[in-house]
Amino acid sequence: MSAAVVEGKGLLLKADPIATAFRDEVKSSLAECKRAPKLVGILATSSAPSRHYAEFTKKQCAELGVEFVLKTTGAAVSSDFGEGEGVEEAIIEANLDESVDGIMVYFPIFGAQQDHYLQQIVSPFKDVEGLHVKFHYNLYHNIRFIKPTSLLSSVPPSPPLTTALDSDQPPAGTVKSIIPCTPLAIVKSLEYVRVYNTILPYGDRAYGKIITVINRSEVVGRPLAALLSNDGARVFSVDIDSIQEYTKRPRVESTTEPEATRRYHARHVVRPSTLTLQECLALSDVVVSAVPSATYKVKTEWLKDGCVCLNVAADKNFEKDVRDKASLYIPAVGKVTILMLLRNLLRLQQYTEGSMASSQ
Amino acid sequence: MSAAVVEGKGLLLKADPIATAFRDEVKSSLAECKRAPKLVGILATSSAPSRHYAEFTKKQCAELGVEFVLKTTGAAVSSDFGEGEGVEEAIIEANLDESVDGIMVYFPIFGAQQDHYLQQIVSPFKDVEGLHVKFHYNLYHNIRFIKPTSLLSSVPPSPPLTTALDSDQPPAGTVKSIIPCTPLAIVKSLEYVRVYNTILPYGDRAYGKIITVINRSEVVGRPLAALLSNDGARVFSVDIDSIQEYTKRPRVESTTEPEATRRYHARHVVRPSTLTLQECLALSDVVVSAVPSATYKVKTEWLKDGCVCLNVAADKNFEKDVRDKASLYIPAVGKVTILMLLRNLLRLQQYTEGSMASSQ
Repeated sequence: MSAAVVEGKGLLLKADPIATAFRDEVKSSLAECKRAPKLVGILATSSAPSRHYAEFTKKQCAELGVEFVLKTTGAAVSSDFGEGEGVEEAIIEANLDESVDGIMVYFPIFGAQQDHYLQQIVSPFKDVEGLHVKFHYNLYHNIRFIKPTSLLSSVPPSPPLTTALDSDQPPAGTVKSIIPCTPLAIVKSLEYVRVYNTILPYGDRAYGKIITVINRSEVVGRPLAALLSNDGARVFSVDIDSIQEYTKRPRVESTTEPEATRRYHARHVVRPSTLTLQECLALSDVVVSAVPSATYKVKTEWLKDGCVCLNVAADKNFEKDVRDKASLYIPAVGKVTILMLLRNLLRLQQYTEGSMASSQ
Repeated sequence: MSAAVVEGKGLLLKADPIATAFRDEVKSSLAECKRAPKLVGILATSSAPSRHYAEFTKKQCAELGVEFVLKTTGAAVSSDFGEGEGVEEAIIEANLDESVDGIMVYFPIFGAQQDHYLQQIVSPFKDVEGLHVKFHYNLYHNIRFIKPTSLLSSVPPSPPLTTALDSDQPPAGTVKSIIPCTPLAIVKSLEYVRVYNTILPYGDRAYGKIITVINRSEVVGRPLAALLSNDGARVFSVDIDSIQEYTKRPRVESTTEPEATRRYHARHVVRPSTLTLQECLALSDVVVSAVPSATYKVKTEWLKDGCVCLNVAADKNFEKDVRDKASLYIPAVGKVTILMLLRNLLRLQQYTEGSMASSQ
């Protein structure tokens, strides 16, 4: 504890002040709602962290005035039932229940593949976690604004919209696409600590920043790398077997005119990188780690002096002395994630109403 | 070689005669087509087995009169490009190209999670491999007949259709759902060797059979276990960390009347099993193994005498002496799989026309 305040160390920033800003936003949005939205949580396993997270969701909802109903099934009810038993039926029931505005499923349940199937079964109109492929597709293609009715279609938008971005306000007839909660919470935390420069134009505010993201899962690492690079950053995406570079900007060696480095693709491109993790970290202004392992640690000695470090994993991926190098260290973003989820809930409630109105 | 014909051994059945029956079916369907269908294969890696499979597809298509175009991208073009580079763009282009009736992507590319994302990007109207979640949903819910327009919707059918099955002919206004190629090829092979009893009513022809399926991936093992149990079999689904039982029939211990065992659920239910693999094999009339490992082997000594064994993996999952116990051994079904894919292609071409006609 005393080490945390020793002079000369970087700042330790807990998520509370970041969460507070969004809690106020959610509260004022709720005040304008005709009807308080209803969120259904589905708990289907005996996992203690999942139950803990469900209780945390309940508490947050109660505090803010969102109706929360926890449905338990399978091993969450009794050890007489299997892990995950009944979860698909619970999702389908919540899809069909018109009083339900959002569905949250406590993963992991069966493992990555079968869990991915379940994530696609949740109606996109109730997918507060933003795990449906439709939302990932929009994110990867830098499609920020959508027509609410587009959520009805099984076919990806064709051709992808490539409208110029000059504002974060959706053009008439469109709404913001839903962004997966955890990557969004990370982006919002990085905005809060000024990694995003609001002097720069919207859609390019991370320009000039080099960011390493350790983990390339479809739930956290890849969408995060795409979001950051679509916002202008140069991102190293590090996974167990490869390192890739995500960027909107053309290869420097292929440009002849100096201004060419300011021109960029409509969305990020991905290329294999020849750098090692150590070389990436030496260059990086920001390091985000989300490795689900108790033993994995980012070496403090490899960090660039004065960088920003953010831990997303349940275990700490950074060493205890991380602030000897980092100017700022955010140890967890869970409190921000839940607010992103509630923000998505409020939006989806509106989109459902918008979609029904326009189809009448 | 001599061992293969030693008296007293089970029969070795290669896939050729099974494939021949379906080749004839595809040929006669093609003869009735107004326009020969066009299949696009997308090869994005340097993998030798994938390139080999692409060449095999090309040859099969040429033989049958299906137009096949192979698009190469990324590391399939040159080692200057990354593995998988450009694959998503190639899929989107083929989705938009009205002259293309079917899309086949040579997996694996990035690994299970990102590959699953790509599988959801393929338009369901061109998904000849049947890997879209819509088709998996129908399969898991025993929804055999669908309206072609249902493929347009992002939301699962609500409520699931539970029409009585008394025929394999779709009711008016509906068509057959698409079934993933590999599980379908396995079912068709088991039909061919009379594991399915055609004296029994449609939809319950595997009744009485106990089948062990080793592997529970979303691509092969789980859909196969669901198909077989929806057709009446009692299936043990074996994966690295658990054994489950898939069945349509109620628990025997919970029934009091003798005829109760003939009543069944509209679709299979899944329960944890307390049996070991050895106990499952001792009971099983059929053993299907699809473990992607060169060293994994099903122990011949554990097999029930006279069972049917079917290998789906690229490597042989059965020991050399498998036919000391098995009455019949099918070492591979790849030749049937490609014909299932072409059958799906012909169907999807019709469904697209049907869907466009009804939306006019």
